[in-house]
Amino acid sequence: MTGIKQNFIEYIHHLQDAICRGIEMADGKGKFQEDRWQRAEGGGGITRIITGGNIVEKGGVNTSVVHGEITPLINQQLKVNGHSFLAGGISIVIHPGSPMVPTVHANFRYFELYDANNQVMDSWFGGGADLTPYYLWEEDAIHFHTEFKQACDPYGADLYPLFKKQCDAYFVNSHRGGESRGIGGIFYDYVRPDEKRNAEFWLQFSKSMGDSFLRAYLPIVERRKKETFREKERHWHEIRRGRYVEFNLIHDRGTLFGLKSNGRTESILMSLPPRARFEYNDAPAAGSREEALVTLLKNPRNWC
Amino acid sequence: MTGIKQNFIEYIHHLQDAICRGIEMADGKGKFQEDRWQRAEGGGGITRIITGGNIVEKGGVNTSVVHGEITPLINQQLKVNGHSFLAGGISIVIHPGSPMVPTVHANFRYFELYDANNQVMDSWFGGGADLTPYYLWEEDAIHFHTEFKQACDPYGADLYPLFKKQCDAYFVNSHRGGESRGIGGIFYDYVRPDEKRNAEFWLQFSKSMGDSFLRAYLPIVERRKKETFREKERHWHEIRRGRYVEFNLIHDRGTLFGLKSNGRTESILMSLPPRARFEYNDAPAAGSREEALVTLLKNPRNWC
Repeated sequence: MTGIKQNFIEYIHHLQDAICRGIEMADGKGKFQEDRWQRAEGGGGITRIITGGNIVEKGGVNTSVVHGEITPLINQQLKVNGHSFLAGGISIVIHPGSPMVPTVHANFRYFELYDANNQVMDSWFGGGADLTPYYLWEEDAIHFHTEFKQACDPYGADLYPLFKKQCDAYFVNSHRGGESRGIGGIFYDYVRPDEKRNAEFWLQFSKSMGDSFLRAYLPIVERRKKETFREKERHWHEIRRGRYVEFNLIHDRGTLFGLKSNGRTESILMSLPPRARFEYNDAPAAGSREEALVTLLKNPRNWC
Repeated sequence: MTGIKQNFIEYIHHLQDAICRGIEMADGKGKFQEDRWQRAEGGGGITRIITGGNIVEKGGVNTSVVHGEITPLINQQLKVNGHSFLAGGISIVIHPGSPMVPTVHANFRYFELYDANNQVMDSWFGGGADLTPYYLWEEDAIHFHTEFKQACDPYGADLYPLFKKQCDAYFVNSHRGGESRGIGGIFYDYVRPDEKRNAEFWLQFSKSMGDSFLRAYLPIVERRKKETFREKERHWHEIRRGRYVEFNLIHDRGTLFGLKSNGRTESILMSLPPRARFEYNDAPAAGSREEALVTLLKNPRNWC
């Protein structure tokens, strides 16, 4: 398994560089600032944050490779019974300043669990990418989904439909009447190698997903960055960003696991939008674009 | 026990009226708007929200009395094994627009648990009040704590020190290096009647705490409402309001329990500030008032 681990870790650092370069080029002004951090119990990470760009108000492209003994809390949360672990991953969240340009999130991770003799007893991949528009152009949703579908399909026609459905099921504010965070994408977790699809398969699959990120997102940014907006749309943007905060802090397993397992708080919470608004009983006007978005978020659609 | 229940329920509605009146008079402009709601499984509530006042940017004074069968989730979260329940409570959160006027929160609640024959098998009181300043005047913290101490002391000299300590232990953003949400107050939970202090005792104690709320808070509002501030202080205000959001959504048991037990989301999340800011690695300048506040929040002090 060492080959898989090394290969994945090299890949996420390569992807981190490529995505930072791509976002900087698209933005034209903002530059990523890097913080390297170490974890007392083993491993560390490279956090790269961009703020105040032409397009990106706040964003992060972070990698981490952490290892060490497994605490009872981790065993309990992951429903495993291991002695030590290694987890490597890349997390991307981009919050544009304009309400017309969607927020994007992606994450790709690999986990190895070891027994008391340091033998791998379990391993799995996880990941995904999802788009959160504040105003929707359907062609953007179609483009985003189609890119990931095209990247999935060579690995099996079952994968995109399954991971699309899992994404719709995961990024939901259940306390908001089952409202999705955005228009979805793909989501897979605890994907374990088996006889049909081994670790090398899932490694290549994960790379294919990671390689699709900029192709899926940047054309949407290009299309929407010139759209004008007024205070009314900015207000709606901040209301919806409030929902993004709610999902990440109430429901997102990765965020809660990170915060409760003594992860680096600043790196984890880079996912939160720069500003958010929380109003009592906010409801979009009947027949408005805002209302159409909320209706869509409660009724996920097939885009491909 | 019916007497206690009825008496508590009448009291929280009386207190709701009194606090709304007191806040409106202090504000001079904002008026509470009322929403009455019913819960499909039994009971309901009265939500009163104030926005856009001279002083209060957003606030809520809510009561609810809900009852019904206990779900497995509720039994698990409360670590009980009951058949049905009744829960009554009042929740108050006031977010002033000025960073110089602290946010205040209070909550008083009573819970009865019934067996399959509708007999009370368990009951308890809970409650508390805490203050979240963004800029600290020590006299304000002393005033707030002293009011509650004076209300506690007739019931036993042990109560204020115990409930003050519990408040410091509860309202903590553990993921922020043990930073408290504010300068505390009092907090008590799962307080069960016993031979020494029966249900009538805790009913009267809870009333005494509720009656102290306006006395503890309004004089601070009066002192600070004329303080001027600039964009810099407003920025800090929004950063700290972000921490308030983090506590409520990540750690607050009442919020999470409410959202996960299908409570009324809009009434629960009225506690969130109207606007918040989330910045990467924000740190106040050395020697600033902002830094002094953070240092204090990491090292709770005795104010009486």
